[in-house]
Amino acid sequence: MSPDDGSVAGTGEFALIQAVTNGRRQPATTLLGPGDDAAVVAAPDGRVVATTDVLVQGVHFRLDWSSPEQVGRKAVAVNLSDVAAMGAKPTTVLVGFACPPDTPAQVVTEIMNGMWAEATRGGVGVSGGDMVSADQIVISVTALGDLEDREPVTRSGARPGDVLAVCGRLGWAAAGLAVLRRGFRSPVGVVNAQRCPEPPYPAGPQAALAGATSMIDISDGLLADLGHIAAASDVGLDVHTTDLEISTRLQEVGTALGADPLRWVLTGGEDHALAATFPPFDELPEGWRRIGAVTMPGSGVTVDGKEYGHEGGWEHWQQH
Amino acid sequence: MSPDDGSVAGTGEFALIQAVTNGRRQPATTLLGPGDDAAVVAAPDGRVVATTDVLVQGVHFRLDWSSPEQVGRKAVAVNLSDVAAMGAKPTTVLVGFACPPDTPAQVVTEIMNGMWAEATRGGVGVSGGDMVSADQIVISVTALGDLEDREPVTRSGARPGDVLAVCGRLGWAAAGLAVLRRGFRSPVGVVNAQRCPEPPYPAGPQAALAGATSMIDISDGLLADLGHIAAASDVGLDVHTTDLEISTRLQEVGTALGADPLRWVLTGGEDHALAATFPPFDELPEGWRRIGAVTMPGSGVTVDGKEYGHEGGWEHWQQH
Repeated sequence: MSPDDGSVAGTGEFALIQAVTNGRRQPATTLLGPGDDAAVVAAPDGRVVATTDVLVQGVHFRLDWSSPEQVGRKAVAVNLSDVAAMGAKPTTVLVGFACPPDTPAQVVTEIMNGMWAEATRGGVGVSGGDMVSADQIVISVTALGDLEDREPVTRSGARPGDVLAVCGRLGWAAAGLAVLRRGFRSPVGVVNAQRCPEPPYPAGPQAALAGATSMIDISDGLLADLGHIAAASDVGLDVHTTDLEISTRLQEVGTALGADPLRWVLTGGEDHALAATFPPFDELPEGWRRIGAVTMPGSGVTVDGKEYGHEGGWEHWQQH
Repeated sequence: MSPDDGSVAGTGEFALIQAVTNGRRQPATTLLGPGDDAAVVAAPDGRVVATTDVLVQGVHFRLDWSSPEQVGRKAVAVNLSDVAAMGAKPTTVLVGFACPPDTPAQVVTEIMNGMWAEATRGGVGVSGGDMVSADQIVISVTALGDLEDREPVTRSGARPGDVLAVCGRLGWAAAGLAVLRRGFRSPVGVVNAQRCPEPPYPAGPQAALAGATSMIDISDGLLADLGHIAAASDVGLDVHTTDLEISTRLQEVGTALGADPLRWVLTGGEDHALAATFPPFDELPEGWRRIGAVTMPGSGVTVDGKEYGHEGGWEHWQQH
């Protein structure tokens, strides 16, 4: 790998870090950005929300399905969504980036551009990171957030009688995955939903302000993730299909592929919508829609009062 | 991979996460530990120090040279050391962990045991993380820290006339690497120094309290890392070899391998000692020893006033 072949090895670690950090505009929460042993980030609440999610090439993304920019956006989005799901406002992300030495430097800078684009959409900056060599691209992002003097909204506060609601899209990423697996590239709406989620970050703090009793980021599928709330809160959760809007677009894709769009909505992962429970009779915050109710302990997660036939989530070790 | 073959795939992601988190004792700084969308960690200063370092199997560690426990300890140590180098007290670590599905679950739990051991040595807990599948083991650790109402000690505050000092071992990891490369496993002191550093975490806050004007974690080698202080502070730095204690053990290993131990001390990486500059005439904090002086801008990093012949650091993309 010669110094001018355009690979990350040819470009060099320090030059590449320069290329991906220079000229970036840090928000006010970044008190000290990249370039020292560590970053310094504002934590006005006196507590910091922190989460890490790792994306691996060939497991969580494919560069023949997604552009490098979409991969970068996704890596940041899945983490900011976890911060939002605690009811917190994101403050920064840090990036651990591993790739083969012969990776084109252009691919890395495009992934970083995507990270910065999504970070900016979430109101934060990339305040630090590490770049190393590996056999495949592995992107580890850590996101931090501020609770703004509210208590964190955990998975364990749901109470029987609460309203179950969601904010954000359901089933779109799964429909997009089904399309891509058939070798198609359209409809672009669902395909792009698979390539990169668009989590509704402000909906997390809004739900917390509105008194949400529990909240979770839907990464593995609605029913699977509601199972975590059911277990942590020791309640049942019933999804009402009459409350689930299945968009015309999902219905069209379902018809075209001979698939049941309801299954995508109930079990499809990677949309990173937020699900939360709210006290009954309270008005839901803007953008949130009721999809069911919290029921008595022991009944688990049900759909219209019954166990759902196609349940299941996503375990990373299983081969799909 | 069957459910009982002892692999991570057979064990399953959720069962494995249970196995590596159950029964762990979180310190008081962990306000909400693993198991929700994100952790909540104390940040009493109102600012949080944050850093991420990634370790890759075959690049940063080898499981035929190090035990899984040593690998885990190292992954945490290199990050806590970066927090200390800002003059901050570590508060927590988060772990992004990727490994092949056929990795023995035992290896993963031993790596996690090592992480917890080193986290405990640093006074922190493992408050969150992610486990995913990849072709090789990749460990991404993020460490957070608290400034305790002090200003962060950056790389940019050194002034001509300041004293240059270090705390911690120099050259031991490089000597250990030389031993391992020859196929030997002893002397165990230097070999273990290569397998896992023992950074002097409390020395970071102590240096900050004592008025350190700049500080850095020595990960790539003394001269290479002093180069970062020289560049960021726009000063020169001169190392006095008469002030460098080369231990009997390093001299013995050097003699046995026909190598110059001074080179290990000046250019060897991975010891994670701390280097800092202090105002002249002030007493150095306990454990710190003077090794040179800050000189005028433009002279770079010198050894006894002259450029050192064997300079160099470590770029991750280069093949060694």
